[in-house]
Amino acid sequence: MADAVLRQALDRAVDLARRGPARDPNPRVGCVLLAPDGSVVAEGAHRGAGTPHAETAALAAAGDAARGATAVVTLEPCTHHGRTPPCATALVEAGVSAVVYAVPDVTAAGGGAQVLAAGGVDVRREPHPGAEDLVADWARAACLGRPHVTWKIASTLDGRVAAADGTSRWITSPQARSAAHTLRSRVGAVLVGTGTAHADDPGLTARDDDGMLAPDQPLRVVVGTRDLPVGSQLAAAVAAVADAAAGRRPADHDADDPRPGEVVHLRTHDPAEVLADLRARGVHGVLLEGGPTLGGAFWRAGLVDELLVHLAPALLGAGPHAIPDLGIGTIADAARLELVEVTTLGPDLQLRLRPTTPAQED
Amino acid sequence: MADAVLRQALDRAVDLARRGPARDPNPRVGCVLLAPDGSVVAEGAHRGAGTPHAETAALAAAGDAARGATAVVTLEPCTHHGRTPPCATALVEAGVSAVVYAVPDVTAAGGGAQVLAAGGVDVRREPHPGAEDLVADWARAACLGRPHVTWKIASTLDGRVAAADGTSRWITSPQARSAAHTLRSRVGAVLVGTGTAHADDPGLTARDDDGMLAPDQPLRVVVGTRDLPVGSQLAAAVAAVADAAAGRRPADHDADDPRPGEVVHLRTHDPAEVLADLRARGVHGVLLEGGPTLGGAFWRAGLVDELLVHLAPALLGAGPHAIPDLGIGTIADAARLELVEVTTLGPDLQLRLRPTTPAQED
Repeated sequence: MADAVLRQALDRAVDLARRGPARDPNPRVGCVLLAPDGSVVAEGAHRGAGTPHAETAALAAAGDAARGATAVVTLEPCTHHGRTPPCATALVEAGVSAVVYAVPDVTAAGGGAQVLAAGGVDVRREPHPGAEDLVADWARAACLGRPHVTWKIASTLDGRVAAADGTSRWITSPQARSAAHTLRSRVGAVLVGTGTAHADDPGLTARDDDGMLAPDQPLRVVVGTRDLPVGSQLAAAVAAVADAAAGRRPADHDADDPRPGEVVHLRTHDPAEVLADLRARGVHGVLLEGGPTLGGAFWRAGLVDELLVHLAPALLGAGPHAIPDLGIGTIADAARLELVEVTTLGPDLQLRLRPTTPAQED
Repeated sequence: MADAVLRQALDRAVDLARRGPARDPNPRVGCVLLAPDGSVVAEGAHRGAGTPHAETAALAAAGDAARGATAVVTLEPCTHHGRTPPCATALVEAGVSAVVYAVPDVTAAGGGAQVLAAGGVDVRREPHPGAEDLVADWARAACLGRPHVTWKIASTLDGRVAAADGTSRWITSPQARSAAHTLRSRVGAVLVGTGTAHADDPGLTARDDDGMLAPDQPLRVVVGTRDLPVGSQLAAAVAAVADAAAGRRPADHDADDPRPGEVVHLRTHDPAEVLADLRARGVHGVLLEGGPTLGGAFWRAGLVDELLVHLAPALLGAGPHAIPDLGIGTIADAARLELVEVTTLGPDLQLRLRPTTPAQED
């Protein structure tokens, strides 16, 4: 089959996959079945845990027409016996002649390519950046056994997050703040501590440069034992959901309009407990946006996978620190990281780093 | 005349210029006089204030052969009536037919090209990076009316220069430390406060990766009213010079071998006074390597032209700050800088920044 036809089918499969739920234990996957002449036989997408996988959905829609077809799928078909039978086996049994997939499955459910090849199916991989983006967080979370954690900091060159009087608007540029909103729209959850909820009254929504809600919104998570501040944006969001559920107030928006993410208050100080709760909610990637206390707790627990620094070319010389006391007393114990990426955001720098020393356990 | 011949003469003029003294009120300049057939008529280099300028030296060596020659010179000939007459006038009077120069003179002594053209000399500029490097610091100092000041900091991502127990070896990588030595060899003077002289016992020499002294060594300057610590490297250097001067100890090195720079102790806390003293010594560029106290004093006096940050991808969470209290109380008063250049030094980042807000005056 012509490469152009396969690539077009893969683009379509990625579009189908995107319709799946962002927060789900399973990855978002799309599948297109092509007849030998390149025409579309059937399509399928995964709609969330407990529903058919994308391949199974497409096979069901195709019926006998699946025989001899080429299955184009965003992720390597699974070998997992779960709530649904393994897709690799289903594809072999349906008599497809070829499978083209974009992203290898590196999790325990992987190995589908071998199963297909052993079943006489012609298998090949066709890389696709969009397909990789769709499953990256899911795959990382599957390997980690918990959501992937990014600690985001916006500080001056000298490591301050606010001036001596507590003012901090704005340390970074509009370009950096815009990038921060894009980041929110790409993670499953944004986390702050109750301290930040009280001090800053954050909305934690992902907005575009015009202030409009982005289509994808993260779960908004407050961590800590204190109550949400009365009258705060996050408390209001919780109240509105409760009102709507009780029928006290009708939903005042179009069902297709983006809505802010659900607000969850986790009354604990244990980062591992937070991540276990969020994993159960189908969150694959979290962004720590809270102050130094929250980030420091995750760091000390060895639960930070990436540090993202928005560095403003400014000096304060005083004021609260971005990085709290980490219990490091001497230079040999410094927390070392590897600089993975440096980009500019207008006048600011964005540094992406990964810890290289084993972080301390609590 | 062929371009290749001119460029070769310019390379030679740059080599001649380099033989001049690094610390001198005047710039280092070289001049080559070419006959119409491209052969070298005479050469000249400036050997320091009070001695002939490069063009004058070359004209004197050439005598009548200067008539009809092309003068190739690293810097635009001066119009300055000082200890020597203006070179532009001297070149016209000697009857040279053409002048090729590499770097325009932007100081008060500039304008030589017009003088030459008005005198009927064919003048053109031929840019040469080596020639630009030779006079860059001199030109900046001439425009500023004082040496150009670079404040160098080596810190962790969170702005610390040492751990809580004071240990700091090594925060940055061997690559960053090597770059710091190269930097020392390119400035007229390296400055530390007496606090750093006591705490770190620095040598302040410029060394290559094998620990050998670089050919160019900066003046080593200690600022502050305390005495140099007894037995320190800097105090020993002062004593050795005194011993040699008194004939108590013979010089134990070959005259051609590089020697560490002279040590100067300036017993003041006033940055402007320090710079005036160093300018009188012919220093065009200084590197602040002392701790936060020295850098902070220059910053508050509005006397930092460039901030050079060696940023290590590490966190300490505690310990002394790279940037001291600058008297900034609120975010609107943050000291803003412009990020001019970002480079990597092994695992570390080098950020070059220039202040964008008018620094406060004392």
